[in-house]
Amino acid sequence: MISKLIEKIEKTEAPIVVGLDPKLDFIPRYIQEKAFEEYGETLEGAAAAIIDFNRKIVDAVADLVPAVKPQIAMYEQYGVPGLIAFERTVSYCQEKGLLVIGDVKRGDIGSTSASYALAHLGSVQVGSRTYTPFHEDFATVNPYLGSDGVKPFIDVCRKEDKGIFVLVKTSNPSSGEFQDREIDGRPLYEHVGDKVREWGEEAMDGDYSDVGAVVGATYPEMGRVLREVMPKSYILVPGYGAQGGKGEDLAPFFNRDGLGAIVNSSRGIIAAYRQETYASYGEENFAEASRAAVLAMKEDIRNALAKR
Amino acid sequence: MISKLIEKIEKTEAPIVVGLDPKLDFIPRYIQEKAFEEYGETLEGAAAAIIDFNRKIVDAVADLVPAVKPQIAMYEQYGVPGLIAFERTVSYCQEKGLLVIGDVKRGDIGSTSASYALAHLGSVQVGSRTYTPFHEDFATVNPYLGSDGVKPFIDVCRKEDKGIFVLVKTSNPSSGEFQDREIDGRPLYEHVGDKVREWGEEAMDGDYSDVGAVVGATYPEMGRVLREVMPKSYILVPGYGAQGGKGEDLAPFFNRDGLGAIVNSSRGIIAAYRQETYASYGEENFAEASRAAVLAMKEDIRNALAKR
Repeated sequence: MISKLIEKIEKTEAPIVVGLDPKLDFIPRYIQEKAFEEYGETLEGAAAAIIDFNRKIVDAVADLVPAVKPQIAMYEQYGVPGLIAFERTVSYCQEKGLLVIGDVKRGDIGSTSASYALAHLGSVQVGSRTYTPFHEDFATVNPYLGSDGVKPFIDVCRKEDKGIFVLVKTSNPSSGEFQDREIDGRPLYEHVGDKVREWGEEAMDGDYSDVGAVVGATYPEMGRVLREVMPKSYILVPGYGAQGGKGEDLAPFFNRDGLGAIVNSSRGIIAAYRQETYASYGEENFAEASRAAVLAMKEDIRNALAKR
Repeated sequence: MISKLIEKIEKTEAPIVVGLDPKLDFIPRYIQEKAFEEYGETLEGAAAAIIDFNRKIVDAVADLVPAVKPQIAMYEQYGVPGLIAFERTVSYCQEKGLLVIGDVKRGDIGSTSASYALAHLGSVQVGSRTYTPFHEDFATVNPYLGSDGVKPFIDVCRKEDKGIFVLVKTSNPSSGEFQDREIDGRPLYEHVGDKVREWGEEAMDGDYSDVGAVVGATYPEMGRVLREVMPKSYILVPGYGAQGGKGEDLAPFFNRDGLGAIVNSSRGIIAAYRQETYASYGEENFAEASRAAVLAMKEDIRNALAKR
């Protein structure tokens, strides 16, 4: 699966993921009102607003980027209707030729991780029939439980040609509380990085592995080290934009060939119309503002890589 | 919320959680067939079988135990219909007077954890209306992202009188890969335990805190230490039975007053009818076999606590 992502990154010249994290707050009032007129102020109404909003964003950016990353928590908070919206979003993005990274951060003991892996990347059997519940192309995975919590995902990746990104160093302010603690002279996140490299060797797909890593844009120096610790793992880089990561911070996450990393922006793209820079688009043209924000991000990354 | 759990534990004299992890394999053939006749071999059919199975188990054990713990992965693998079954299971158990621990192991950066917390323990706003999507009483939480990934859950616990159990030392064989690594002379899980104690101080509810911990029955010596590290945190103990934890291993998780721990058994109870010990019940009486398994587990724990 990583080879498909790389192909799309090369074609679009954009190592960019659009984070589809549609808080209701981000969704223009008129879209919410239209959904509430049809479904009432219900969970179904919220879900309808999310689907409508996502589709318009996707229509505006699908030719510019290789992939999207819906954060499932933003859907799960609207209960079952929210999760229907999640699945429909995954389907719609795939129809438009985008790869979908399910930002689910699942992880459990082995037999339970196997169920999560089937839910998100694989298929389940019911009697004689087979279903693919949420059918993302990639999923994010939490490593705290160790190898037997991660390997069931890798098994499904190998069987179904899918990929994962394992949390190594997250973008949030308190990520260092445990992740930065020193063990034998190196921080925990490097030890997790060692495991990602080891796990990744079992799942190579061309020059890179289907086992990637999550490393926050907010920690570029750690990104530089982790780039070397896991040379064959793609790094999914959240934290650009709203969380504080800047274009110049991104260079260390990439290999010399310009590959090896893909940068996520959520709010910065999907709620671009609320920024001063794009305010002239107005709420009505929010999707065009998102398109402009993607183009600006592409330029920002291109400049950062050219300068190094 | 922890005070409600303690009250129920004292009333039932059973520090036991029944793990409602209904793999289709565990569900008697005749229940599956009845569901498939009505809904076909579909995800809806799987969900109907799960709901029917869970209800019969709950009817048979509701007077014996304080709480149940549905593992959401077992539902999520059947997609949206599976998650409908999850929500209906939560509702049914609460109607029968049971507390529900959603074993969801969620955890993310702050704003995302906040959404998970609302999904599982809190309420969301849609326009002028409020909904409680999955409305569990407790949820399990992954600590890898540090305080800002956990605190949004605690905020909701305080607001809504709910509780969490933070993963400290998990029951699986490879849990030691990261959790046991030494940092300043103490394993990572003890440092996580320190944080659980600290977080818990903000959420006291009587003698114990609404911030509890998960420590596997498979690691009783570590349980002994962690019992002291987090004296005010209830410990949710998985791994008893099918995963290898025995009655005698459980004593270290309890305080001298007989409180402080609650032990989960999933397969050992819900699939008891498939064990030699309970085979005489037959598939038809699987729920009675589960009741017998709960009574045996209660006795096993009572003996373990009496011996110390």
